[in-house]
Amino acid sequence: MMNKMNSVAMQNGQLHVKQIDIPTPSAGQVLVKSLACGICGSDIHITRHTADVFDIYKNLGIMEQEASNEQEVLLGHEYAAEIVSYGPETKKELAIGTRVTSVPILLSAGGAGVGVTPGLYGAYSEYFIVDEALLLPIPDAVPSEAAAITEPLAVGLHAVNRAQINTDDAAIVVGCGPIGLAAIAALKLQGVKHIIASDPQESKKQIALEFGATEYVNPMADDEVARATALAGSNKVVIFECAGVSRLLNDYILRAPAKAKIVVTGVHTAPLNVNFAYATVKELDLIFSYYYQPQEFAESLENIASGKIAWQKMRTGKVGIDGVQGAFDTLFKPNDHIKIIIEPWRAGALERVTN
Amino acid sequence: MMNKMNSVAMQNGQLHVKQIDIPTPSAGQVLVKSLACGICGSDIHITRHTADVFDIYKNLGIMEQEASNEQEVLLGHEYAAEIVSYGPETKKELAIGTRVTSVPILLSAGGAGVGVTPGLYGAYSEYFIVDEALLLPIPDAVPSEAAAITEPLAVGLHAVNRAQINTDDAAIVVGCGPIGLAAIAALKLQGVKHIIASDPQESKKQIALEFGATEYVNPMADDEVARATALAGSNKVVIFECAGVSRLLNDYILRAPAKAKIVVTGVHTAPLNVNFAYATVKELDLIFSYYYQPQEFAESLENIASGKIAWQKMRTGKVGIDGVQGAFDTLFKPNDHIKIIIEPWRAGALERVTN
Repeated sequence: MMNKMNSVAMQNGQLHVKQIDIPTPSAGQVLVKSLACGICGSDIHITRHTADVFDIYKNLGIMEQEASNEQEVLLGHEYAAEIVSYGPETKKELAIGTRVTSVPILLSAGGAGVGVTPGLYGAYSEYFIVDEALLLPIPDAVPSEAAAITEPLAVGLHAVNRAQINTDDAAIVVGCGPIGLAAIAALKLQGVKHIIASDPQESKKQIALEFGATEYVNPMADDEVARATALAGSNKVVIFECAGVSRLLNDYILRAPAKAKIVVTGVHTAPLNVNFAYATVKELDLIFSYYYQPQEFAESLENIASGKIAWQKMRTGKVGIDGVQGAFDTLFKPNDHIKIIIEPWRAGALERVTN
Repeated sequence: MMNKMNSVAMQNGQLHVKQIDIPTPSAGQVLVKSLACGICGSDIHITRHTADVFDIYKNLGIMEQEASNEQEVLLGHEYAAEIVSYGPETKKELAIGTRVTSVPILLSAGGAGVGVTPGLYGAYSEYFIVDEALLLPIPDAVPSEAAAITEPLAVGLHAVNRAQINTDDAAIVVGCGPIGLAAIAALKLQGVKHIIASDPQESKKQIALEFGATEYVNPMADDEVARATALAGSNKVVIFECAGVSRLLNDYILRAPAKAKIVVTGVHTAPLNVNFAYATVKELDLIFSYYYQPQEFAESLENIASGKIAWQKMRTGKVGIDGVQGAFDTLFKPNDHIKIIIEPWRAGALERVTN
C-alpha cells in the first residue's frame, strides 16, 4: 500500500486537495477508507466563518486560547467507510473490508470530533481514523451513500427527542434541508399529527410531503405560525429552526404563540440582538440541539436499512475529491441541493443525481 | 359608604396618590377592600421603564398599538383583601367581610391583569375589583400581610415546576429576593438535594439557608457554577435567574455546563446581544417563566397556612398609602429589603419590620 493519500484541508476559508501521509491507528483505533461522505451545513459554516467558530471553541475551552485560527481542519464527519487495518489493543471483531459508519467522535482523542477538530483526520480524505468501540457495520442492502446520511438523520431525530413533543402538538419545521427533512421524518415516525414544513423554496414541497410533512407552507406567502396555532388548539406549537438563519430566532420568539417551544438546530455564531421579554411573557422554551446519542445514531441507520427514510430523495449530488471546492462554490450561492455526497476515492466534478 | 377612595397611580415613571371613585363591580365581579399588598419587582420595573413595557405589550397585541404610553396604571397585584360587595350574577358564597386573595387576573375583562393593565384597579388602592370565580378565602390563622405573599411564592413555585428538575440535579438560585427565596422554598419542598443560593449580598445568606438552601455562595468571591457542576456529577445543573439582571443571562449561557437548564424569571425588556452558539454547543435549555397556574397559587397559600414557608422572614417593611413613593425611592437605590407590604387603608411612612 502506498503511504500517501489525497485529503481535503480547509484553512481559513479555503479548501485545498493535498497529499498527506496515510495515518497510523493508535490503541483502540481503526484505519478506514472513506467510501462516501456528506457535505454538512456546518462544513460550509466553518469554511465561511473559521475564526468565529474557533473563537467559540476557545471560549468554551474546547480549543487552546493561543491556538491559531489559521489551523487546518480535515473536514468530513458524515461517512461510510471500509475497515483497512486495526491499531493495537483492538478486538478486531469485524473483518478487514467490512463497511462501517460511526458517531464522528474519537473517544481515544478525548472526545474530539472526526472531521471537525484540527489535528484529526476527516472523511473528505481517502483514509481516516475512527474508534473501534464506536463502529457500526453497514447492512449489505444499504449503499454507502445512504449510510453517509445516517449522521444528519441522527441530528434531526435528536432535535425531535429534545423537544419532548406530544402527538397532538403542532410542529413547524423551518427549512427543508437535510436536518429539516430528518426532523420531519422523525416527527412522522413518532406519530405527530400536524407537521408543517416551512421553506421559501417551493421546490422543497414535494420532498417534505414525501418525508412525512402533513402540509407545506411557503412562509413568504402564508403565516405558518398562525396555521400551526390553529391546528394545535389547546396543545403546544413546537418550532424546529433548521434553516440556520439567525434572524429567524428573533422572528419566531416574536411570533410564537404562548407556551411554544423553539428547538434550535442551526449553529449561530454571530451575536444576535434579542429582546427576551417576548419569550418571558409567552413562557417560551428555547431548546438548543447539537449532537445526538449513540442510540439515536444507530436508530437512524436502522431506519435507512428498513426503508423508513427515503434517503434517495435527499441525495441530490455526487462529487469526486477534486470537485469538492466546486461543490462548495455551488453551496455558497443560492441553490436547491439537499445533500451532496463526496466520494473521496475518485475524481470528478459535481453531478446532479435524481431519484 | 363614601364613594371616593385613595389610589396610587403610576404614570410615566411617577407615582401619585389620588382620590378616585370607588369602582362598581360588574357581572361576576366583587368589590374588595385592600388589606395588604406587596410591592413587586415588576412594579418597580414598569415604573422605571414604562414605555419599554408598554411597547412590548403593544407588539404582543396585549395593548392597542395606538395606546398612549402616558396612560396610568393603578398598581398592586399581590394582595389580601376583604369582600365589600358583590356585583350582579354572582353566587355570593363567601360572606361580606371574608378575607380573600386571588390570582390577579380579571377573566371578566378578557384576562387582563389586576394592578398591571391600564384601566383596571389595583391593590395599592383602598378598593379594587376581582372576579368571584377566582376568590380564595384566607384561612383565619394567616395574617393578611402573609396572604399577600402568596403571589410571589406562586411565581417561584411555577419556575421550579417549569424546570422539571430531578431531586439529584443541582440547582443554583441566582438572587435571593422574593422570587429567589420562593424558588428555594419550592425546591426544598420538592426534595432537591443541592440548592445553592447565589447573591452578592452576604446579608441574604441566613434567610436563604432558612428557606432551604443547602449552601450559599457569594458569586463575587466563589464560582457558583463550578460548585453546582461538581455537586451535580452526571445529573443536570439547573440555574434559576431570579435577579432580573439582563447581563446575567449571557453570563450563565457562557458559563453553564453542558445540558444545563436556565430558567429565566426576571423580565428583561432591554434588548441583549447574545451569542447562541454557546447555548447550542452545550445543548442548553432556556426556559422562560412568567405567570403560574391557579393550583400553584392555591398550593402557595396552603404552604403559608401550614407553616411550610417562613413568610415572616421575607416581609422586611410596611408602609401606608402616603408612603408608597418613599418606599419606591428606597427600592430604586441599593437596599436590603426583600418584600415591602403596603397597607392602603392607613397612612404612614416606610418602617422596617424584623422577625
